[in-house]
Formats: sequence, C-alpha cells, structure tokens
Amino acid sequence: MNGRTSTTMTIHFKQVAIVGVGLIGGSMGMILKSRGLADRVVGVGRTLANLELAVQRGAIDAFERDPKAAVPGTELVILAAHVESYAGHLKEWGHLLEPGTIVSDVGSVKGPLVGQVESLVPAGVHFVGAHPIAGKESSGVGEGSVDLFANALCLVTPTANTDPLALRTVQHVWETMGAVVRSIDPFVHDWILGAVSHLPHVAAFALMNALTDLQERGEADLLDYAGGGLRDTTRIAAASPEMWRDIFLWNADNLLTMTEAMEKHLQRFKALIQAKDAPGLAREIAKAREARQRLK
Amino acid sequence: MNGRTSTTMTIHFKQVAIVGVGLIGGSMGMILKSRGLADRVVGVGRTLANLELAVQRGAIDAFERDPKAAVPGTELVILAAHVESYAGHLKEWGHLLEPGTIVSDVGSVKGPLVGQVESLVPAGVHFVGAHPIAGKESSGVGEGSVDLFANALCLVTPTANTDPLALRTVQHVWETMGAVVRSIDPFVHDWILGAVSHLPHVAAFALMNALTDLQERGEADLLDYAGGGLRDTTRIAAASPEMWRDIFLWNADNLLTMTEAMEKHLQRFKALIQAKDAPGLAREIAKAREARQRLK
Repeated sequence: MNGRTSTTMTIHFKQVAIVGVGLIGGSMGMILKSRGLADRVVGVGRTLANLELAVQRGAIDAFERDPKAAVPGTELVILAAHVESYAGHLKEWGHLLEPGTIVSDVGSVKGPLVGQVESLVPAGVHFVGAHPIAGKESSGVGEGSVDLFANALCLVTPTANTDPLALRTVQHVWETMGAVVRSIDPFVHDWILGAVSHLPHVAAFALMNALTDLQERGEADLLDYAGGGLRDTTRIAAASPEMWRDIFLWNADNLLTMTEAMEKHLQRFKALIQAKDAPGLAREIAKAREARQRLK
Repeated sequence: MNGRTSTTMTIHFKQVAIVGVGLIGGSMGMILKSRGLADRVVGVGRTLANLELAVQRGAIDAFERDPKAAVPGTELVILAAHVESYAGHLKEWGHLLEPGTIVSDVGSVKGPLVGQVESLVPAGVHFVGAHPIAGKESSGVGEGSVDLFANALCLVTPTANTDPLALRTVQHVWETMGAVVRSIDPFVHDWILGAVSHLPHVAAFALMNALTDLQERGEADLLDYAGGGLRDTTRIAAASPEMWRDIFLWNADNLLTMTEAMEKHLQRFKALIQAKDAPGLAREIAKAREARQRLK
C-alpha cells in the first residue's frame, strides 16, 4: 500500500480471515472479494453447513474450523462473531499472528472491550475497533449482500494505543465497502449506541414480555389484534438472545442509567394519566413527537 | 335494505354525514361514494381548506361547517373526529337526528365512551361503536385511499342497548369497505387495544423523551447515530398529541396497569444486568423473541 493520504491509499491483502461468517462477516467477505481487496478470504467458524454456504455464496474462498490453521499468511483478521468470543479466540491463536497483522472487529460494544482486546494482541499486532451500523431483521450469510454497507455509518474507535496506519487502513477498507466512516472514542461509542440501539432493545424486549404477562390475565389472544404500531415497536425484539445478552453486559453501566431514564418517563406518563392532566399529557407527547420528527 | 342475512343484505343511504374528514373519515367517504353505498356524503369539519381538499379528493360531495345543517336527510352519521369531541357534537345536534338514524364512530377507545354516547343519542337513534384498526404514519384526507381498510380488522362493540339491525348495517358497511369485522365487548376492546396499541405508544413516547434527556447529558448528537432499530421502535411517537392525550385519558385504568407491567420488565432487565446474570438475560430475551415471532 502507499501511504500518501487515506483517500488515495491503495490497499491489498494477500489473505483476510473472517471469524464468524454471518450476515456482517459474510457481506464483508463478498465485498473484499468482489472489489479485489484480498487475494484470498478465509472463513473461520464452527458450523460446517454455514461455512459451506458461505463458500457457495462467494463470501469466502475457503474455511477452517480450527482458527489456528487460518493464521499463517493472514494480514487482516476480522472478528465478526459474538463479542464475548473475542478473548477466547485471541488467547488461543493471537500469539501466532505475525507482527504487522491488523485485527479489527464489527462488534456493537466497544469501551472496555477495546481495552481487553488491546491487552490480548501481541506486540506488533495492531487492533482497530470498528462497528458498522447496518443489519437486517434476518441474519446469516444467506442474507449477505455486497450492498449491505452502502451509505451505512461505520464507527471506528481508536485509542491512544492505536497504530495510525492500521487505523487508516481499516477506515479505507470500510470506505471501499461503501460505508461513511466516523472516528469516535470507544467509551463515547458505548454511550451513544447505548441510547440509540441498546436501550431501544431493552424497551422492545420489556414491552413484548409485558404483553405476554397481560395476555395471561385476559382471555383474548392479544396478538390477533395487533396493528402496524406494535409490529414496528417490537420488530427488534426478535433479535438474537446470545448477542444481546453480551451487549447488555458489556454496556451495563450505561444501560442501567438509560433504562432508569426510560422508567422515569413511564412514571411521568402514569402520573399524568392518574392526575387526568390533559395539558400535561399533550405536552409530553408533543415533546416526543418533535424529537421523533428530527429523526429522519 | 332487505334483512335476510348480514352477508346478503343490500344497504343504501340517501345521505351519510362524516364528522371529521381526515385520513379515516375521508377514506370512508371515498369508499361510500365509489361503491355506491350513499347518494350523498356530507363532510362536517372546522377547517375550510381541509373540507375543500376532501371535495377535490372525492371523499365528500359537500360540506357543512355548522353540523346542524348536515343533519336533515342524514341516515348515517360517522363520528371520525377526536373522541373527546363526541359529547359536544351530540349535545349540540343529537336531538335533531330523525328516529332510525344510525350513529357510528371510528374511535380508538370504546368502554366508557360507548356508554356516554348511548346516553346522549335520543330514543330511536341507534349508536354502534366501531374501530377500524388501520392507519398510516401520515394523516389527513390527502393521504386517504379507497384501499385503506382492505383486509384490515374492524372491531364493532355492541352492548345490551344496541339495535340488532343497526349493528348488522354497520357490520355490512365495514365489510363493503373491505374490512374483516369482529364483534367485541367495548370494555374488552379497551383492554386489548390498551395492550397492543396504547401501551406501545406510551413506550415509544417515553423512549423518545428518555433519549432527549440523555442527549442533554452528553455532547454527541445521538440521533445522528440512529439505525433502523430506533426508527422502527419510535415510529409511532410521531402521532398526534391531541388524539393520544384523549385515548390515554379514556383508557386510563387499563393503561396504568399496563404501564406498570412494562415497568416491571424494565426493572427485571436492570436487575439481571446489575447482577451480571448472563443466563437470566438470555432467558428473558428469548422469551421476548418467541413472543415477537408469534406476531406475524
């Protein structure tokens, strides 16, 4: 690669390893291959059928179920499995990575996780955290697409320890994937994503579980009467329990604060309803509406 | 009309009055006219520009800003304005309705409201509550459509006082509109809609207002980072403050119980996160996911 500026740099990897070939990892492989960014993309995973599907879909050239076998010759490793798996992976084969290798990820939490990963990669190996804000209701490499990241926001989360050239390289990879890249502190990332993504998931899960409780108190099958509003509000409640368990635990402190902020507003609505405070209710709803209208 | 069975009855009105010519009232007018159910549809409203648009869009034949002028010759009155306005309307001109006139509505609350309306219509005038579960993010007659109710659920809410022929007539009107009609007790209606519609609105408003609070605590412009999850979860937070204020007040008791059910689940998530209870979190999320997957 030449190192003039991030916008004109040319990047080419002999081999990229993608750990976790699902919707995100699989789509990355498709783009890396179709854009000629990598001579060879190796998938690492546990499920044979999924890895075979990934080859068939053109997401990877080959796969290894033993990650250690994917290390030799790899210049870029993308961690695209559950965030809770990162430490186990790096402990198992991080020491085998050659100096100069870049490790990056696509995880939905960053703050303390970035520190953990930095402490686990050997000297000379460069970690750069990244989080593409893209996804679908459906998951799996079968849903992968070369367009998944087109115009999506991708946050990169450098720290004082981050190698500047590795950061520019990862930024460039994401720009080539079609994403709009923004650099942000890992802890600020977790505050922001806690608010705009993790808290809405807590809310959707809690709403769905409240409906299950209410269902048990009456005779009508509530979900038979659902309109578009409930469908929209709870769409993300169909997300992966394992993935969201880990996100909630890694962003625990922010989420506790944020869930309390939401509880406070539920309580405010309750108080206004109980007091039959019509102007107060209209004001609170108008405030919500104005904020929502700013969200294009 | 002949009275053989509800599925073969033929209905024709000389004149229908629609009070409140918005998305729902306007779409009803379009269908009543295009299906030849009414010789003449008169719109009643306050805003001249809106009433003129309704004529232009083919939703009504004529309009009256003084509702009393719309009464003579009207066989069916549809209350399609805010539920809080029903009493004022009926007190003003209910006594002018001829015996045999049917009054119906499209409001999102029923229970005590149905009792109020029944007490305000004169003897010989028949009230039948109805609630089509249809709508859009956008409102107004400009968004109206002859397809708005196609395959939508329409709940009719008879009581012991309801005239059976008036009920069958209203059911038939809604079937002709393309809706699937189901009959349900007005108080059961409010329990069900409280759960599947009103509570999700409380949740969406509270989430949006919580984000506004969180926005003020940090420097980042949170909404710049929003993905599809937040957009879906809060879409209904852009709804009309006046309409939802009234719905919340008319369904106050159910909503207090239901908001508490949601609070309980937020608190459960908080407790599990605080205790770092990974299996407990996965279980709660899986429960929400299973319930959401039953919602097609």
